[in-house]
Amino acid sequence: MDIETPPLQRDTPKPQGERRGLIIVHTGSGKGKSTAAFGLALRALGRGKTVKIYQFMKVPTARFGEHRLFERLGAPIEGLGDGFSWKSRDLEHSAELAREGWARAEATVRAGEHFMVVLDEIMYPLRYGWLQLESVLACLRARPAHVNVVLTGRSAPAELVALADTVTEMTLVKHHFQAGVPAQRGIED
Amino acid sequence: MDIETPPLQRDTPKPQGERRGLIIVHTGSGKGKSTAAFGLALRALGRGKTVKIYQFMKVPTARFGEHRLFERLGAPIEGLGDGFSWKSRDLEHSAELAREGWARAEATVRAGEHFMVVLDEIMYPLRYGWLQLESVLACLRARPAHVNVVLTGRSAPAELVALADTVTEMTLVKHHFQAGVPAQRGIED
Repeated sequence: MDIETPPLQRDTPKPQGERRGLIIVHTGSGKGKSTAAFGLALRALGRGKTVKIYQFMKVPTARFGEHRLFERLGAPIEGLGDGFSWKSRDLEHSAELAREGWARAEATVRAGEHFMVVLDEIMYPLRYGWLQLESVLACLRARPAHVNVVLTGRSAPAELVALADTVTEMTLVKHHFQAGVPAQRGIED
Repeated sequence: MDIETPPLQRDTPKPQGERRGLIIVHTGSGKGKSTAAFGLALRALGRGKTVKIYQFMKVPTARFGEHRLFERLGAPIEGLGDGFSWKSRDLEHSAELAREGWARAEATVRAGEHFMVVLDEIMYPLRYGWLQLESVLACLRARPAHVNVVLTGRSAPAELVALADTVTEMTLVKHHFQAGVPAQRGIED
């Protein structure tokens, strides 16, 4: 129990530093990495900010709930992948798509036209060596100061954690798959 | 590194259990508990499902980004609190609001008219003893089988974790407040 922590720090002086774009990382093996990124994106949209969401592992034609919703909000998610799975036979094609996708995402981050850019599941192509970590770090360091970038996926590299402003690790405590409840529409997709 | 884990388990047999409403808990001291709940809610909305979001600690007049956005989507967030902070002078009033709010939320869960009901920050009134844990557990156990309930907040009680289907702990690795970057519109609210 940590009830000494106030839920709303209404009366607490706020930090006096500069307002600037943040690098936010959601990592760990638990649920909620992508959904929390979507939540940040919708909060920004609710404030009238511009948002761009890239998904490195989803196909461009994915029509999960979040794709339908962000399209309705005028901020369609852009899938950059080929629905890669561990049994894919054509990993070189997956790698090529990831590199092409990164070129698009990098250009968007550098252009500075968006308040927030989400790079969902970018840790996969980093882990598989399809993208150069140094290229991603260089882009983040050189981005326009107002751009917030949210990066998700398991096993965030230590250099990215070091560079990031805010890092949350989502840990699986229990999951309904373990109890035999299958994936279902509106929850998992 | 856990690269043996497939990113998309397209070729993996799905669990064969029943589809039913889930109890999903986001706990821990890190960021992302509420934003991940919002992400789940927007995914469900994107699938045409009905969603109701209650916030136990926010005032009914809160107009953060998420309030503006969900209102735009026809699923307005309902604040049940009084913006309680640790320095509040009138804790009994906060407690009364929490109990009244729970009566409303409980009725919604039991009515079964929503695919998903979010009980954001419900762990606070539980920890402060404003709500009876047994009352919340009884409501969850007795709810219509199709209703998904998402509960957020630090320090989820062990009995709730035991009852839940899916529990994620969000752990703070680092936070930009620590580096002196102040809260900013579109990110924190």
